[in-house]
Amino acid sequence: MPDAACGGKGCAAGKGFCDVRERWTDLAVEAQGQGGAGPGQSERLSGGIERTVVRIDSEASARELGRPMGEYVTLSCPQTLSIDLSTRRALSGELARVLRHMLPPDARTVLVTGLGNRSVTPDALGPRTVERVLVTRHMEGCLPAELSARMARVCAAAPGVLGVTGIETAEVLRGMVEHVKPDAVIAVDALAARSSQRICSTIQVADTGITPGSGVGNHQKALCEETFGVPVIAVGVPMVVYASTIARDALGALGGDDGSVDERQLTDCIERVVSERLGDLIVTPREVDALVERMAGILSEGINLALHPGLNADEIAQMMAQ
Amino acid sequence: MPDAACGGKGCAAGKGFCDVRERWTDLAVEAQGQGGAGPGQSERLSGGIERTVVRIDSEASARELGRPMGEYVTLSCPQTLSIDLSTRRALSGELARVLRHMLPPDARTVLVTGLGNRSVTPDALGPRTVERVLVTRHMEGCLPAELSARMARVCAAAPGVLGVTGIETAEVLRGMVEHVKPDAVIAVDALAARSSQRICSTIQVADTGITPGSGVGNHQKALCEETFGVPVIAVGVPMVVYASTIARDALGALGGDDGSVDERQLTDCIERVVSERLGDLIVTPREVDALVERMAGILSEGINLALHPGLNADEIAQMMAQ
Amino acid sequence: MPDAACGGKGCAAGKGFCDVRERWTDLAVEAQGQGGAGPGQSERLSGGIERTVVRIDSEASARELGRPMGEYVTLSCPQTLSIDLSTRRALSGELARVLRHMLPPDARTVLVTGLGNRSVTPDALGPRTVERVLVTRHMEGCLPAELSARMARVCAAAPGVLGVTGIETAEVLRGMVEHVKPDAVIAVDALAARSSQRICSTIQVADTGITPGSGVGNHQKALCEETFGVPVIAVGVPMVVYASTIARDALGALGGDDGSVDERQLTDCIERVVSERLGDLIVTPREVDALVERMAGILSEGINLALHPGLNADEIAQMMAQ
Amino acid sequence: MPDAACGGKGCAAGKGFCDVRERWTDLAVEAQGQGGAGPGQSERLSGGIERTVVRIDSEASARELGRPMGEYVTLSCPQTLSIDLSTRRALSGELARVLRHMLPPDARTVLVTGLGNRSVTPDALGPRTVERVLVTRHMEGCLPAELSARMARVCAAAPGVLGVTGIETAEVLRGMVEHVKPDAVIAVDALAARSSQRICSTIQVADTGITPGSGVGNHQKALCEETFGVPVIAVGVPMVVYASTIARDALGALGGDDGSVDERQLTDCIERVVSERLGDLIVTPREVDALVERMAGILSEGINLALHPGLNADEIAQMMAQ
Repeated sequence: MPDAACGGKGCAAGKGFCDVRERWTDLAVEAQGQGGAGPGQSERLSGGIERTVVRIDSEASARELGRPMGEYVTLSCPQTLSIDLSTRRALSGELARVLRHMLPPDARTVLVTGLGNRSVTPDALGPRTVERVLVTRHMEGCLPAELSARMARVCAAAPGVLGVTGIETAEVLRGMVEHVKPDAVIAVDALAARSSQRICSTIQVADTGITPGSGVGNHQKALCEETFGVPVIAVGVPMVVYASTIARDALGALGGDDGSVDERQLTDCIERVVSERLGDLIVTPREVDALVERMAGILSEGINLALHPGLNADEIAQMMAQ
Repeated sequence: MPDAACGGKGCAAGKGFCDVRERWTDLAVEAQGQGGAGPGQSERLSGGIERTVVRIDSEASARELGRPMGEYVTLSCPQTLSIDLSTRRALSGELARVLRHMLPPDARTVLVTGLGNRSVTPDALGPRTVERVLVTRHMEGCLPAELSARMARVCAAAPGVLGVTGIETAEVLRGMVEHVKPDAVIAVDALAARSSQRICSTIQVADTGITPGSGVGNHQKALCEETFGVPVIAVGVPMVVYASTIARDALGALGGDDGSVDERQLTDCIERVVSERLGDLIVTPREVDALVERMAGILSEGINLALHPGLNADEIAQMMAQ
Repeated sequence: MPDAACGGKGCAAGKGFCDVRERWTDLAVEAQGQGGAGPGQSERLSGGIERTVVRIDSEASARELGRPMGEYVTLSCPQTLSIDLSTRRALSGELARVLRHMLPPDARTVLVTGLGNRSVTPDALGPRTVERVLVTRHMEGCLPAELSARMARVCAAAPGVLGVTGIETAEVLRGMVEHVKPDAVIAVDALAARSSQRICSTIQVADTGITPGSGVGNHQKALCEETFGVPVIAVGVPMVVYASTIARDALGALGGDDGSVDERQLTDCIERVVSERLGDLIVTPREVDALVERMAGILSEGINLALHPGLNADEIAQMMAQ
Repeated sequence: MPDAACGGKGCAAGKGFCDVRERWTDLAVEAQGQGGAGPGQSERLSGGIERTVVRIDSEASARELGRPMGEYVTLSCPQTLSIDLSTRRALSGELARVLRHMLPPDARTVLVTGLGNRSVTPDALGPRTVERVLVTRHMEGCLPAELSARMARVCAAAPGVLGVTGIETAEVLRGMVEHVKPDAVIAVDALAARSSQRICSTIQVADTGITPGSGVGNHQKALCEETFGVPVIAVGVPMVVYASTIARDALGALGGDDGSVDERQLTDCIERVVSERLGDLIVTPREVDALVERMAGILSEGINLALHPGLNADEIAQMMAQ
């Protein structure tokens, strides 16, 4: 989730920077609707999951949709307070398949990184996910050869956010990448969606990398192949909608979108309604604390299955419980 | 904050019950604007604090404003990400004064109770506050007489919410009240406001008691003098605005309030925009985790000063740090 | 786990009260060895679990062992950092069987209570367990009849400890019992063992109820059938050993037990070694945070299976994940 | 605090590696007593604080005491459950003085790092401390010049432990140091002491850097000037004593130290008493959760005062509360 511009501890300047932001979304599948590009290809899988693939394959589309060229796979399930066990397994299994498809075929060493601020509940998805990743890089030589052969060399890090560390996320990770020399990086982050129905019901996997804080005009270095020299796969789940999006959508639903309300008037309305003096106002379910834990479980299960294809879910659960 | 109707663990029926709720507020000072009643009396205090007193003194007003007769004192300060130390001290000092004014003059034994669900961040204000209350009831006989004379007999409880315990809050507390026989009860709760500018910048103190879940048509027994036989003082701070309020206000700002948009159309719009399938959607600041801690500190300081007038802030801090 | 005598927040008198405590244990199966009573009956079950039943069936034995008459069932598994999945399921399944054996055969309404202080890691086992109990009492009328018929009416509470609430645990619970009128109470608590090998590898279930703080000469009212009028089943797991026990055992291992070291000398040694100025010193595994979570999962699974025999583990997991 | 050798998630080999460890201590002031070196120089300061300076200034002493050459300053206060406010301020003020004395005089950019595992309560001191450090590096250009002139450029990181990340701490930090190019590094860690009276009552500051896991024969790279190219100041507070130390000391107190008990017999005793199958057994106060928070507050206050000498404690508190 976007880190507040410089809104960390002690910043005098942490004022609302995105108050009249266009209905912001980190999802390519939603941006598409806005940008006029054609729809992605959707497919209904078992377990009630829908997989949509959006490919941004020209510079023009990339500019139009405001995100880098590449493949964006969206897995979504019906949004309910309770994801049943079979849907969870279907989601984590499908995530594993998508990740294996995007990872270099011979990837042996992988760095999994959880972006976001662990002290901000909806933004803690990344750190909470990496806590449950089965880390093995430091155990080489300790494990029985039979077991070792079935596992990748995995390391994990939650580098914190600029506002808390004072260092750009990309810079923290660059040092690790140089030392660990992974074959790929997987970066997990909480996202913002345009539609509240996407919250906690959609997983986006992209082979494009990710730019921390991109939603807030907070220009940080991207985590991507260009920066790190190895492929960066971004895994994200919407945890919030911006309050300004809800306000805009209410106005749009009333007919504003057809041009009957002009943009200036819209912006004025939103500014009157959504005071952003207290940082970003976000829209989120009351149950977000529990939802973050649940989604971190699904993501880490998918990542563990993708990285250690020689282990099944029970073996992984067993190893995680030390 | 209102507990979801029966939306606790395992409830199949936890669907959106408040999706087209009228711009809900737990603040008398905001309800007033809606109800047409005259404005409360405001006074500007030192430290940038404004104190507004609303008295609902007739059954007619009570019906109109949808809340019980009594005195509602609102303390508010400018909303900023950072409340400076002098404002904090001014707030807790003024809260102590208001509480002392509302407590029975000879109150010696007081039960402080923190309502809400400690596992739901913005709803954890009550439980977090009581954790910092200086509890003394069990120490009688242990303390030096000199010290004991300057302190009240205070006990504290966070009874949990119906969805988690399966027991109504009033019933859990009634047993304690019967055993402890306090001279008064102070009940701390997180509230919902109509205006996002009220979040974490307003404290409401009322001599009317409080009804858990009142905002959600979830009819629980009130915590009040009638139920418990002793005065119940409610202390609340808005931590959220309902997403439907934001949407309604956006529409209102566009002219909906003057009658140009009819109510049915409004409700339809909101239903289209604010999907409530995932429990209540709330609007809250990104920083709500930190804001809850800070406000719990201010409230507990005010309560401790009010209950132990023989101790100063340093002595209380010292005793709390065991 | 024993609450410090009056050592809550603000107590000036919280000094070491148990510094030369006899190798303290809350386990009947360990006390027995000390008291000279005959050994319990042990049986090896599938999944590597050993079940030992100790019956204290005379007042003389009760006095000798310093605990009430009744049946104490101990389930133990080999202590390892990692309890494998099959052992976990065997433990929770066997716990369910023992509980069903001890519960009144027609028990329909049950109150599950988690004793201990949630802010003290090894003492948080009780509160953490009840968070995962499937609470249903408030949902009557909400659930489909078919489902409702297969479930008990369960409510749950974590009443806190005397030092934090200022009210005795038994008093807090008594009010709930009077209101809820359960057919039985299940009380979950963290225990102290004599042997560090018991930590997190032993579950004691007793039909005797439990006395909070009994290990520390801190005379609180017992939670038992006499107090509440309904059976109270105690479920406990050792999370700590007292430091003084370790010191005594070291001395004993050197030959002190055979009389070559006199008791006065022993006590002096321990006092010199184990400074208890900072509250009780406890011996606990480094990993206690993770172990508490894992054991809370096992206990709640056993309790849920025992109370809702019409549901299987997957259905319960599903309902808990709301 | 030492990280378990390779005892992270999933390690099959995490068995007791330090069961008969010599009474381990991370404190130079305690090692000294063992090594036979002369006592350090002690001085009693105001506020009841004692400052002891140990200088290890020859390779022989370094070998004998098993720690690097350099200056070790120990601040200690009487151990009580409650450190009063004046003692806290005296401790943080004195820590600031010691740090300023050890920091390069013209240090402008400083990296503060909190070692240890935030999911293991007594080991979370480092991460909890850095959460409260006033981070400013990312705000250059954002702050008023007047304010900026009074503040250092501070960044902060909690790199996690080898068992959780799969990367050595020194390697994670090396990348950051290369990017940030600080003038000095301050590394905060929880320590193990020999005497339980040292727990939470002693702060050790050393200009020698620190070796993660040094207490457990777990040979990781040191964080020191040699590794990083800039001075590394280690700040540590004992949070635990090893259970084996308590057992050894009990035996020693009985006369073992004078040679009457031979080493083999001692070791056998300890092995019988202190089962280390469940990771390291540690001795710690029951209240360790609260003590970690309190000590993190004292350390961060000292660090903030040392790094931003132009700000007073109130200004720092104000900026931290964003």
